[in-house]
Parts: sequence; C-alpha cells; structure tokens
Amino acid sequence: MPLEKSWVASANSSATPFPLNNLPYGVFSVGEAEPRCGVAIGDMILDVTEAEEQGLITLDDEPLFDVPYWNDLMQMGPPVWAALRARLKALLSDGAPEQDSVAPLLVPQAQAVMHMPFVVSEYTDFYAGKHHATNVGIMFRGPENALPPNWLHIPIGYNGRASSVVVSGTDIRRPWGQLKGPNDTVPRWGPSERFDIELEMGAIVGVDSDGPITVDQADANIFGYVLLNDWSARDIQAWEYQPLGPFQAKATATSISPWIVTKAALDPFRCPTPEREVELLPHLRDTGPMLYDIDLSVSLAPEGADPVTIATTNYKEMYYSSAQQLAHHSTSGCPMRVGDLLGSGTISGPNRENRGALLELSWGGKEPFDVAGQSRSFIEDGDTLSLHGHATGDGYRIGFGDCTGKLLPAGPDPYAT
Amino acid sequence: MPLEKSWVASANSSATPFPLNNLPYGVFSVGEAEPRCGVAIGDMILDVTEAEEQGLITLDDEPLFDVPYWNDLMQMGPPVWAALRARLKALLSDGAPEQDSVAPLLVPQAQAVMHMPFVVSEYTDFYAGKHHATNVGIMFRGPENALPPNWLHIPIGYNGRASSVVVSGTDIRRPWGQLKGPNDTVPRWGPSERFDIELEMGAIVGVDSDGPITVDQADANIFGYVLLNDWSARDIQAWEYQPLGPFQAKATATSISPWIVTKAALDPFRCPTPEREVELLPHLRDTGPMLYDIDLSVSLAPEGADPVTIATTNYKEMYYSSAQQLAHHSTSGCPMRVGDLLGSGTISGPNRENRGALLELSWGGKEPFDVAGQSRSFIEDGDTLSLHGHATGDGYRIGFGDCTGKLLPAGPDPYAT
Repeated sequence: MPLEKSWVASANSSATPFPLNNLPYGVFSVGEAEPRCGVAIGDMILDVTEAEEQGLITLDDEPLFDVPYWNDLMQMGPPVWAALRARLKALLSDGAPEQDSVAPLLVPQAQAVMHMPFVVSEYTDFYAGKHHATNVGIMFRGPENALPPNWLHIPIGYNGRASSVVVSGTDIRRPWGQLKGPNDTVPRWGPSERFDIELEMGAIVGVDSDGPITVDQADANIFGYVLLNDWSARDIQAWEYQPLGPFQAKATATSISPWIVTKAALDPFRCPTPEREVELLPHLRDTGPMLYDIDLSVSLAPEGADPVTIATTNYKEMYYSSAQQLAHHSTSGCPMRVGDLLGSGTISGPNRENRGALLELSWGGKEPFDVAGQSRSFIEDGDTLSLHGHATGDGYRIGFGDCTGKLLPAGPDPYAT
Repeated sequence: MPLEKSWVASANSSATPFPLNNLPYGVFSVGEAEPRCGVAIGDMILDVTEAEEQGLITLDDEPLFDVPYWNDLMQMGPPVWAALRARLKALLSDGAPEQDSVAPLLVPQAQAVMHMPFVVSEYTDFYAGKHHATNVGIMFRGPENALPPNWLHIPIGYNGRASSVVVSGTDIRRPWGQLKGPNDTVPRWGPSERFDIELEMGAIVGVDSDGPITVDQADANIFGYVLLNDWSARDIQAWEYQPLGPFQAKATATSISPWIVTKAALDPFRCPTPEREVELLPHLRDTGPMLYDIDLSVSLAPEGADPVTIATTNYKEMYYSSAQQLAHHSTSGCPMRVGDLLGSGTISGPNRENRGALLELSWGGKEPFDVAGQSRSFIEDGDTLSLHGHATGDGYRIGFGDCTGKLLPAGPDPYAT
C-alpha cells in the first residue's frame, strides 16, 4: 500500500510519522483548555472531541469523545473502530468535501501538551524476548541455565502496577529502596544505584473477555500498540524478586508513547514469530503473522548534551506475540478488560548493539559503554532516555511519537526524621 | 467498650456479627432492584442510598451513595468516614429520635443478594505470614532454606489481578492450565488437579498517595478490612512461577467477604506484631499496634454435606501488618489509589490445625486429611469452602460475614476444536 494523500500538506512527506495511513489516537491540551481526544495527521492534531461535537463524527447516540481518554471508543468494539477510521480517512483525505469544516479543528502539535491516551485498567509485563531473557539468564544463572525450563512453553509474565503508567515527557524521579549488595551482610535503605530502562512495545486490550480466549480472538481484541519503557531498579529487583517476582523495582514508573497506533495502521507490517525451538501446546500456537516489522531504537542524552543512539532493534525479534501473551493471560479464566496494557518484555536483538536495556548493554555493569564521551553502566541523574519506533511502508512511515523520560536525582530521604 | 444498644432488636445479641459497634459497609439488592449501598445492623441492612436520598444522611453537596460501591465515600477522606459512622450510630442507637423515619429503610439480610462492596482499583497479594512461608518453604526448598533471605526484612508481595476479585457466594470454576509434574518430560494442558484456598485478610486503601508514606500514614490511609480467599492452582503455580512469580495460578478468582469492616470498628482489637527476629530498617518498624485480634477459621462442606471446620487461626499471627505492607508498597514512589486491595498473605498459626491452606494441611498432598469421612488433599469438585472471622469484645462480636465459594467442575476444554 503506498502513501495515502491528505489535504494536510505535512502528512504527505515520506518522513512524517503521521501520514493518512497512520491516524494514531492521543489526548492533548492547548494552553489552559481541558484535555481532549485527538488524532495525529502530519504535524497537526485533529480535535476529535470538537469534530464529534460539531457532528462531523457520529458513531453512537451518546458522545464517545467528551472524555479525555479513548476507552469509550474501545468499548464500542471493532466495527465501530473501523467506522471511525474510515470516517477520519474520509475527512482528511485529499479532496475531502468537508475540508473547510475540518481545517479549523486542526491544532499544531508543537502547541499541544500530550496526556495519557487511555485509562490503564491493569498492567501486565511479559518477559517474552528470547535475546533479553537469554542475556539476563546468563548474567544471573550462567549459560547452562540461561532460560528457565518453562520459558519456551509459555510467555512468562507478571502483573505490574497500572497506577505507575505515565505518558512520555513525564520526568522520572530516581527511587529509594531496600538494597543489599553481594558484599553486604544486611540490607540498607538508599537511592537505587542501578536504575535502568527496558525497551518494549505495549499492546492495549480493547474488548472485554471473561474466560479463555484463543490466539485469534486475542489478536482481534487488541486495539493498538504504544512504545513502552519499563523503568527498572535492578538493585531493588535483585534483593526483592525471589520468590514472588519483581515488585517495587518496577513500580516507580512505566512510560508510554503518547499515540496509540491502531492494529489497522500496522496491518501491512505483520510478520511471523521466529521459528519455534520446541513445539508449543496447541492453544498457544501461531495461527498467522501477529508480530510487526517495527524498527526500534533507544537514545540517551546526558544532561545538556545531544541524544546518542545506544541500541537498535526490531519488534519482530520477539519470541511471543502480544496475541499469544493475551491468550495465555486468559487461560485460567482471568477476566481481561478494556484498557488492560500488556508490555511485550524487553526487545533485544542478536547482537550487542541490539540490546534494549542498559543491564545488557553494560553486561550487568561490568562493561561500561561510551555515550558522547561519558561512561555509562546504568542511568545517571539528568539523563534523558527516549524510545523511537516506526514501520516503513512504500514511501511512508508509521510512527508512534517518542517515548521519553528524564531521570531526576533522588529526593531527600522520604523517611528522614 | 461494651455492647452498644440499638433499637434494632437483633443487633443487641452477643452472637450477632453486626451489633451497633460494627456497622460494616456493603452493597446489596433485593429482587429486581438495582444494587445499592447498605450498612449491616443485626439481621437487617439499612439502605444507605435511600437514607441519603431522604436527607437522613448528608455528608457532601453531591450524593455519595447514588452508586453501587463505597469508593466515593472513601474518596472523601477520614473526617467524612468518621462523620458517617457517627451519623449511623445516632440513627440506629437505642432511643434515636429518627427511628420512625429509619425503620422503613431496613431490609432483612435474608432477602438481600450481596454484591462487590467496592470497585477494586488494583490488587496486591502478600506473603507475610511466617508460619505459612516457613511451611511452604520447607516443602519446596527444605528446612535449611525455608525462608528466603529477604523475608525477615521486607513484606514480600506481588501484584495480582483486580479483575479476578469476586464477592462471597460467587461459584468458582476449576481452571485449565499448563501443567508439568515432576515426572513429565513436557508440559500438558489440563484442568488443575491441585486447586487450593488461602485464608487471608484484605486491607482496603481509602486515601490516594503519590510517594513513599510512613507506616503511620499507611495505617491512617486504610479504610477497612475484609476476609479474603486467594484461590490458588498449585500445579499451575509450580510450573509458571519461576522466575517472575505467580500469574495464572492466582488469576481464576479471589473471593472477599461482602462487608467492609471499618478500622474504627476494629480499633478496640488492635494488637502488636510478634517479636521481630531481626530488626527492621527504620521506615518499616512498628510504631504501634496495627494487627488485630480476629479469630479466623476455614470450613469445608463436601457436596451435599454439612460444613466441617478444617482450620482455626488468628490475624495476630501475621509477621507484618497491612500498614507495614502498604508503606513498603509505596517506597519506590508507587502511587497507591482509593480502592486498592492488599491481601495479607496466608494466615497460618503454629500448629497443624492452624494452617490456612490445604497445601499446608495435607503437606503438599502427602498427608491427606479427613473431612466428614472423606479424604482431602486439595479441593474436590462440589466442595464449598468458607472463611469465617470475628473479633470478640465485651459481650459483643465484630464479624465480617462469611467468605464462601463453591468449586464447580472444570468446563470442557475451552480450546477443543
């Protein structure tokens, strides 16, 4: 499919992340106005809340966009998702008869502040990238036991904390926590010294389910995708995670990109998971291409310096798709809800430069690497970390907007008396 | 404090779980009517939604009880919680001038169906009972390594699944899952064969917080307590839980008792945690009595048979209080929200008859026990499991209502083609 032409000139560049082919959903505000729903087109945002109010978009008897989140649209189900996309394409395509009515509803992205695009119902984080799991396994358990015995049979995941999810641009404060190094006899209380990122994609559930669903149903129930940075305090994690998994190490913040890219926009970029090393049980097997060919990268900008790319990888490196993860999530009868967010797990690739976490890039801190003349093992105060991602079509790109956060120094001891 | 007298006769018995001293909050419906907020008094329920509508309760300019959950009241904060309790005591106490207006708003509990009393924002389950952790540790890792190294330093917890929380009386369907026994070479797909309960208390967060809070603040932020049964598929858990913790094993259902017993009602029963075996870091130390002396028991009724008590214990057996758990939960900056539910962890006592899970009672299935002439290692289809709890005052009791669920047989293979 080639670039689809819009009357919004900036949307017709092969470099824009937001051509007519994309139409991702976000929530924005300008000045003192209340946050509202919008769709990105070129370097502009169409005010969807206002477009609905003016009758340019009519999907239901009740308004769907009088709230600053996209959950109400998701709740309407896939046919309405398709109807909205078709209507937005009609309104924004080259030669649209409604151009004169729609043009006044465009706002420059440069003037807008982005907010959380949806209300996160619950958040689950997976560990479903094989390169990452292997690297971490070698570091923690040695090469003989790198992958846990269950890893090739189920997408390993754990429940995270929905309240910690924030939109790109939100500053992240270095956390305090209980730490115990290998040479400490007792734990101590202090700021995390090994604060890290994890480069992930997030899948957003758009349809409720109340019992086990198949991989095909799971794929159909996914509304769209975001970039996701699962900020991780490795030293807190090392001390707390046995036997019940990560807890406070992952609860400081999880950042997502501001734009939800729909499954429809990503459809041309579907690709299969890598070859299975052992056959999956039938209910988890691939039934079609459910990963996506999305180039991903991480940049790090030390305080006051320009960003430097520190890793490049691709979403198709995942061993399990989000659809397989969602199907597995439902197997016990676990009810899944509109607004549930599933983190893919860290997306590393086969080579050193493809590693999606500083833990892997610096091999547990043993191999510091250079960033603009500075040495890094983990994140330093003032560093800005950004995730970038786009799929490349025939003369166009599908982008997500960056997923960015700056690490602020730890505050004073919150328990000082 | 002695029994406080009410004009509702059934509330003045030393045997009722719901004297005027208690006043627990629930959501009920009668016949086809919409669910509404109510407070238990003796064998009746005062319709709080209607009492507010009639102007007998006025706490805010906007109604707080026109919704079928107690979150809006929680959101108002502790002074309003206290105002409501004082008003309810005034309306229901012996000699209340409003008796004639209030009496028509009483509904017999026997006619009411109970619903979830609050919207669960997020659910966290802890592992903070030392007898349980020790028993499970001995079974899984041997007596030398029973307690993980971190256990005496932090209340170990993991995030659970809020969507799985159901009210007492909801039938539980035996889940399917991926299973791999010690003698299996590959995993298989089948119904859980080791389905279990966990006897716990649940603490409900009633105040938002956005950064680390102290144990005292945490205690102040707790709105009330429920009984909680963390249904657990031990065979799913054994295969999935390394390295990131329990996931589908705990996601089928978590049952809670229908009545939220307020911290105010439980105040006379506060008691300290057991002696510390190692000193906690200062921010987690006890600052006052934050456990409660609540007698707890579990009964099991095989299909068609009467219930038999299979375990008795007390909430004061916990090593960590819910306030310590909530404080720890916030240490990394994790935002905590009104409606968050914290499971205490299984509350076992020192002796065999004090074990709050079948896993412990049958010692991993190796020591089946007798229930009304039948042998049990784990739950059988048709068994009804109930948790009971009450604190005992001077001539009165503070009860929670039972937390009950019947295990239905597994359905047909959800993935059969």
